[in-house]
Amino acid sequence: MIAIVKPGTPKEGVAQLCEIIESKGVSTSVIEGANQTIIGLVGDTTRIDPYLLESNSMVEAVRRVSEPFKKANRKFHPDDTVVEVGGVKIGGKGNFAVMAGPCSVESEEQCMIIAEQVKKHGAAIFRGGAFKPRTSPYSFQGLGKEGLDILSKVKREFDMPIITEIMDARDLDLFDDVDILQVGARNMQNFSLLKELGRYGKPVLLKRGMSATIDELLMSAEYIMSEGNDQVMLCERGIRTFETRTRNTFDVSAIPVLRELTHLPIIADPSHATGYTRFVTPVACAATAAQADGLEVEVHHDPAHAASDGAQALLPEQFEDMMRRVGIIRSAVTAEW
Amino acid sequence: MIAIVKPGTPKEGVAQLCEIIESKGVSTSVIEGANQTIIGLVGDTTRIDPYLLESNSMVEAVRRVSEPFKKANRKFHPDDTVVEVGGVKIGGKGNFAVMAGPCSVESEEQCMIIAEQVKKHGAAIFRGGAFKPRTSPYSFQGLGKEGLDILSKVKREFDMPIITEIMDARDLDLFDDVDILQVGARNMQNFSLLKELGRYGKPVLLKRGMSATIDELLMSAEYIMSEGNDQVMLCERGIRTFETRTRNTFDVSAIPVLRELTHLPIIADPSHATGYTRFVTPVACAATAAQADGLEVEVHHDPAHAASDGAQALLPEQFEDMMRRVGIIRSAVTAEW
Amino acid sequence: MIAIVKPGTPKEGVAQLCEIIESKGVSTSVIEGANQTIIGLVGDTTRIDPYLLESNSMVEAVRRVSEPFKKANRKFHPDDTVVEVGGVKIGGKGNFAVMAGPCSVESEEQCMIIAEQVKKHGAAIFRGGAFKPRTSPYSFQGLGKEGLDILSKVKREFDMPIITEIMDARDLDLFDDVDILQVGARNMQNFSLLKELGRYGKPVLLKRGMSATIDELLMSAEYIMSEGNDQVMLCERGIRTFETRTRNTFDVSAIPVLRELTHLPIIADPSHATGYTRFVTPVACAATAAQADGLEVEVHHDPAHAASDGAQALLPEQFEDMMRRVGIIRSAVTAEW
Amino acid sequence: MIAIVKPGTPKEGVAQLCEIIESKGVSTSVIEGANQTIIGLVGDTTRIDPYLLESNSMVEAVRRVSEPFKKANRKFHPDDTVVEVGGVKIGGKGNFAVMAGPCSVESEEQCMIIAEQVKKHGAAIFRGGAFKPRTSPYSFQGLGKEGLDILSKVKREFDMPIITEIMDARDLDLFDDVDILQVGARNMQNFSLLKELGRYGKPVLLKRGMSATIDELLMSAEYIMSEGNDQVMLCERGIRTFETRTRNTFDVSAIPVLRELTHLPIIADPSHATGYTRFVTPVACAATAAQADGLEVEVHHDPAHAASDGAQALLPEQFEDMMRRVGIIRSAVTAEW
Repeated sequence: MIAIVKPGTPKEGVAQLCEIIESKGVSTSVIEGANQTIIGLVGDTTRIDPYLLESNSMVEAVRRVSEPFKKANRKFHPDDTVVEVGGVKIGGKGNFAVMAGPCSVESEEQCMIIAEQVKKHGAAIFRGGAFKPRTSPYSFQGLGKEGLDILSKVKREFDMPIITEIMDARDLDLFDDVDILQVGARNMQNFSLLKELGRYGKPVLLKRGMSATIDELLMSAEYIMSEGNDQVMLCERGIRTFETRTRNTFDVSAIPVLRELTHLPIIADPSHATGYTRFVTPVACAATAAQADGLEVEVHHDPAHAASDGAQALLPEQFEDMMRRVGIIRSAVTAEW
Repeated sequence: MIAIVKPGTPKEGVAQLCEIIESKGVSTSVIEGANQTIIGLVGDTTRIDPYLLESNSMVEAVRRVSEPFKKANRKFHPDDTVVEVGGVKIGGKGNFAVMAGPCSVESEEQCMIIAEQVKKHGAAIFRGGAFKPRTSPYSFQGLGKEGLDILSKVKREFDMPIITEIMDARDLDLFDDVDILQVGARNMQNFSLLKELGRYGKPVLLKRGMSATIDELLMSAEYIMSEGNDQVMLCERGIRTFETRTRNTFDVSAIPVLRELTHLPIIADPSHATGYTRFVTPVACAATAAQADGLEVEVHHDPAHAASDGAQALLPEQFEDMMRRVGIIRSAVTAEW
Repeated sequence: MIAIVKPGTPKEGVAQLCEIIESKGVSTSVIEGANQTIIGLVGDTTRIDPYLLESNSMVEAVRRVSEPFKKANRKFHPDDTVVEVGGVKIGGKGNFAVMAGPCSVESEEQCMIIAEQVKKHGAAIFRGGAFKPRTSPYSFQGLGKEGLDILSKVKREFDMPIITEIMDARDLDLFDDVDILQVGARNMQNFSLLKELGRYGKPVLLKRGMSATIDELLMSAEYIMSEGNDQVMLCERGIRTFETRTRNTFDVSAIPVLRELTHLPIIADPSHATGYTRFVTPVACAATAAQADGLEVEVHHDPAHAASDGAQALLPEQFEDMMRRVGIIRSAVTAEW
Repeated sequence: MIAIVKPGTPKEGVAQLCEIIESKGVSTSVIEGANQTIIGLVGDTTRIDPYLLESNSMVEAVRRVSEPFKKANRKFHPDDTVVEVGGVKIGGKGNFAVMAGPCSVESEEQCMIIAEQVKKHGAAIFRGGAFKPRTSPYSFQGLGKEGLDILSKVKREFDMPIITEIMDARDLDLFDDVDILQVGARNMQNFSLLKELGRYGKPVLLKRGMSATIDELLMSAEYIMSEGNDQVMLCERGIRTFETRTRNTFDVSAIPVLRELTHLPIIADPSHATGYTRFVTPVACAATAAQADGLEVEVHHDPAHAASDGAQALLPEQFEDMMRRVGIIRSAVTAEW
């Protein structure tokens, strides 16, 4: 961390600033320029609140020099984290996992039909929503516990691990049979929930908030990890921008940026990112080409009657086509010559 | 709601679309243009999922015609909602309330000092955080229950209603003595929490999420109201944009927009919007000039040692100056000639 | 176009609105709902200013039903536009063109070295900036005419068409030997320049403005095309969002969206989108996977001494690696089974 | 400027980096932390391209420490710039100027009617567009030279200085009689035009681009000033965000931020910021409360027949009401006690 001193601050002022900083157990080192003096902070700078230091009338600005996340940081953990559920590996060289299924669990029949199709075409994990975060209180809110029971049946019938969203820490005891707990974009900074999942210990798929920076996503992962759970996967699902032709703007470069900053697996969700079936395959291909570790995709055999988000679901045959293209692209990503 | 039909769709296709819509209990009316055919949907269009209808291959796009919020909608409730706590009125013509206090409750002494000052200069309600939503798990997380106890003492000592943030529905029984429960920006779409507060029934201050549209803010208010609680206040506290010179971008025009769309009281938080003490007063004045119903402002007698967000706190004398200017501006807002 | 009538407007008001609209030569058709009345506008709605109509006190809102662009619109021109320069085809099925070279033209020697390398590895067109739009007036502004002369030499030496940016219509007579004129993001709505290029008639690569919607990009293309020049290519180069880990946010889904809306070729610029060499190849691969018609990439043999934007240039060997991966991905994009 | 060294870089690497930096005439100073080494750059750091330095494989990141603008910087020019045209002062303590008139000049009669009204109610300067930047090539493009002639007549008839937009440097000889040349948001980074206006020497009102940061706005002012013209005024007119209830999002805190960073006058344009008449007065009041030096507002006596932007024009009586409220608010802003 560095503190930029306001021009015109006398030497005694700079000395006083250094004392304030050192009183928190952090060393200082001063660089005097022609117009500008900088104080370098050396040591455990997590003891310093940068906004507070910036509020000192002699300080012009404070800049971080190192990232505030530790457990999620590749610098301190250079090896890729590999999450393993029911024999499926996510993350790490050579692994690539596709999670597919309907937006909402609607019925046992619906899930069985879709699960058979997505498994046949190469999906490794089955997804389906039982608790649904909907913008409107008047929209379908999910089947709840009944939906989780249906997912359990799919898990056994097709021998596929299951992933579903948790919205409320109080529901946690219903999730015993769930393999991966998903935290939705709207709950990315629901810190109570994150801590609870950190203690619970099962793999978590953490979705990036609509207006969350990459650093904030990593800080939310840090919340889970700081409670002892390092089975965290990150999911890019589009951010909010001024563009309205797609539901969100898929930030494809977040994938290589995250790859550099963290050792955690990186999943892409092209369904929520775009909001329209016809854009899902191009974006799924793009995410694969950018070296995502996996995809989460919505598939429905009868989207016109889906309970939610039918507009972004792939038909089974569209999913098959997507999987073929993704397969070729993976060979470009992993090629060495 | 209207559905725009894809050019080239034959008459039978249009008829088929109308049947699909009517099967959900909604009437249709067709307008044929030279290049474009439109289907008007008449009746209770909440039965139609616009995204789903848009996914039909004969539909080009779907546009809403009326707002999806009802209880919060001024069209159906033209009179201003007035929230009253401990004799203080918020909302409605002629009322203007200022909530002030420290970002975090740090100690009884700290709160007593600040409460005396803010009361003296005209604040009607005391604010202070006991549960703190922090981006980093390594930052101060608030005093919790102990903080709530201190707030209760302030309430009695100074006869001021108190407002504080709730982050987890499981803590609700600790909030018995709290007058207004605040929902933070990060929890604006924590729907489980919103429903619980709807059932709890006490006044709620709902902060706009960092990337929430005005319509989404109103839909979140609708979640609380649909459970039977209409004591909801809305708070503009800055949205996330590309500009980094301030912590967020205060959306001042949201105030007149909300005034038109809803009957709920509108509060402005210039402290979190800007992030820096020196911009708080100008933005507080701006919000007042734009006809906000009140302000929530952070005040600290010793910001350099605040446990959180000291960089944006006003000193008591700065708060006094702000209150004077706000007073003059209120006279411009309420003037009739 | 539809006009949504304010609730409570009497029948005579609606009739009056219809008269106003019909006085501009546009027919109307009224749909009366329980709570809401809609007027459908039928005919040449370009005669109606939607903002103006919306300002009528009886109108709640106006929604467009059809796109305001015509010549760029795939609906009216379903076949892909293929731009051909010096034997290189851009756009249309099976064509894929890579434009590569340094950000700035610095010297003849520099350009010759780079051109040899990029040609060897498969670039079809040579890029280099002679007039440079720099945020600071104190930064290198380009070699100007001398730079254009160097580009001409490269063109002859390596038999490659050349592309370079034009910033000022007054320079147009210097561009006689240039094959493709590039309009930078900052000039996307410099309408005087666009009209001039429309009259000039040579192929134009139009970059998307940092905060331009896809529709605005198409309207700017329409400016060029409405003057008689239909040799327009569109370039996605990243938009401005709140994320700061990359220079801009590459909007990969803009590629399939544009593919649907327009027949014009779509080029991606991963260099400016990301701003950092190490993210260029993943994003180039992603754009290819999303079915771009080509790439514009910055390559420099000695980035540490580049006059501008060295931080985002690929070394020739990195460009070679990128081209190999892009080649495999193209096979996934064009596969049929 | 500081360079953050990649962890694990050996001492020789750091020394090598210092040599590279010093070879450009800038001194260095090294701070070694436990995990992180920082190099401070001391001297004229405008010689260093931060992106380029960041591209060095031993460098993790580069951070600016001082602003890149000089002539516009309040640090070096603490006194407010006061622009004076035709006896009207803009900027500086106690001055406040309102520019009002129609969006487009439509006819002599129209301008005379409006000018009389706005003058009567306190406007000091008359605005009107002769060259109009329109998103669509099919929209009204302005009266051009004829419009400028009408403005000249208004100037003489009412003894008011006039302001109008210039879109093309080639039109400059038509602007002899214009007092203030306006650069629109879309041309904020049309550097050729900015340089030309720098040489021309007349007062310029520079509008902030829709996605321009405050720093970029100041760098564009610097383009004009670096050519010798320091008569520059800055105009906040709304930025582009995800919110669609207003045409743009008026960044009210930009006003106090600019006040701190620069000595140039700061004008607010509530008409373009909001896009709707009914929000103009609240935002004009807010801007005044935030201590803008003036306003630019659109007024039309017959908005329903305006050639452009009628939806955001105030009627003369609405303008009168706005001016009264603004007057009271100014007294709050300038009060001392």
